[in-house]
Amino acid sequence: MRELRLRPLGPVPEIVPGDDLPAHVASLVPDGPGVLVVAQKIVSKAEGRIVALADVRASTEAEKLAAEVEKDPRIVELVLRESRRIVRKAPGVLICETHHGLVCANAGIDQSNAPGADHVVLLPVDPDRSARAIQARLGSGRAVIVSDTFGRPWRQGLVDVAIGVAGLTPILDCTDQVDRAGRPLRVTFMALADQLAAAAGMLMGKAAGHPLIWCEGVTPAGDGALADLLRSPERDLFR
Amino acid sequence: MRELRLRPLGPVPEIVPGDDLPAHVASLVPDGPGVLVVAQKIVSKAEGRIVALADVRASTEAEKLAAEVEKDPRIVELVLRESRRIVRKAPGVLICETHHGLVCANAGIDQSNAPGADHVVLLPVDPDRSARAIQARLGSGRAVIVSDTFGRPWRQGLVDVAIGVAGLTPILDCTDQVDRAGRPLRVTFMALADQLAAAAGMLMGKAAGHPLIWCEGVTPAGDGALADLLRSPERDLFR
Repeated sequence: MRELRLRPLGPVPEIVPGDDLPAHVASLVPDGPGVLVVAQKIVSKAEGRIVALADVRASTEAEKLAAEVEKDPRIVELVLRESRRIVRKAPGVLICETHHGLVCANAGIDQSNAPGADHVVLLPVDPDRSARAIQARLGSGRAVIVSDTFGRPWRQGLVDVAIGVAGLTPILDCTDQVDRAGRPLRVTFMALADQLAAAAGMLMGKAAGHPLIWCEGVTPAGDGALADLLRSPERDLFR
Repeated sequence: MRELRLRPLGPVPEIVPGDDLPAHVASLVPDGPGVLVVAQKIVSKAEGRIVALADVRASTEAEKLAAEVEKDPRIVELVLRESRRIVRKAPGVLICETHHGLVCANAGIDQSNAPGADHVVLLPVDPDRSARAIQARLGSGRAVIVSDTFGRPWRQGLVDVAIGVAGLTPILDCTDQVDRAGRPLRVTFMALADQLAAAAGMLMGKAAGHPLIWCEGVTPAGDGALADLLRSPERDLFR
């Protein structure tokens, strides 16, 4: 890779449920190879993954957990519905493993930038499928990453990661490379899709002002999905 | 940020202990504002953080731990010297909290690309100081990040993160932003230095071919250090 250039595409109109997001996106993406990083929020909105909290009835389990972690029981109800399991809990904190296998706070449910103060936005049901629908409109040589903004253990601050992938191998295998001493590299797999998501996150701005970032200079190869980026629970020392 | 452009600088000669890395680097960095991401490996080499394994005598504690995790006792000895504590251990795996406060595998000790098969490279003693020494040669409006390649819990593949910072605030405070509904954003702190390190990692290549990446389009502001990026152990649910 000799140069990498990232820029926001747009303007992107306010996305509402039922919008044909792939069509919107395809009209904005320039010609040539590249990778498009799409903020999860507009994907979720187009797919109608918006819930009015007034419509949510918290279960007894959610009520109990909500009291324990000092959160809105209706939010906790949604978190439980979106999760396979709770990985950690503490006052104000619920770290979950979602049905997709993502480990993140509140199962990715977000109140910021939802349409109205009493609505929340859930993650897409299948972010790979969302990415593939957009990628199909862009054609070959052009990949799509759906990204979201997650916290990390050990480190302060958020970074964006890939939660859906289409049209590129998200993990780059460097096994056949050797270092300058001719020794095979021990560090062999780079999380290319997460690197791209993190880079694009710098240009998105948090107020969803720039939900589409176009990355030129990287020619996507292969294919893959979110599953490639997820460590299996039995090989994970931190859940 | 309207456009972000990243490219490798070079060619960078093979760096050896005692080299004036700041001078080498300053001669390669173009004019104008930007952020330079420097691979940890060349910083460590310039600073003489290379150890011949033949010179390492493993303690009884290191011998015991090495047998448990199936690693070279001399490597484990160095890992223990570089660590405050072991966060997790398993066959083939030692996740450590280094004296800097970084949580990473093997205390950041790396055998790849070391000068000779029986040598390893340790992290810089003070990566912020290393970054500041380079930044001082670049002048104001130009920041320096020393980066290294770490694994993550939950996710496959490696990404680069910042281990030393000079000339920019590594965490971007978005507290004063509101979303489109006028609601204050709940997600408020972005790890800008880690986003830049991750982006630059795509261009470095793993064989240390491109240890200097110049990022244009971001104008560094403020100042800070690695400590800003580290979650305090008492606020961390994963160590």
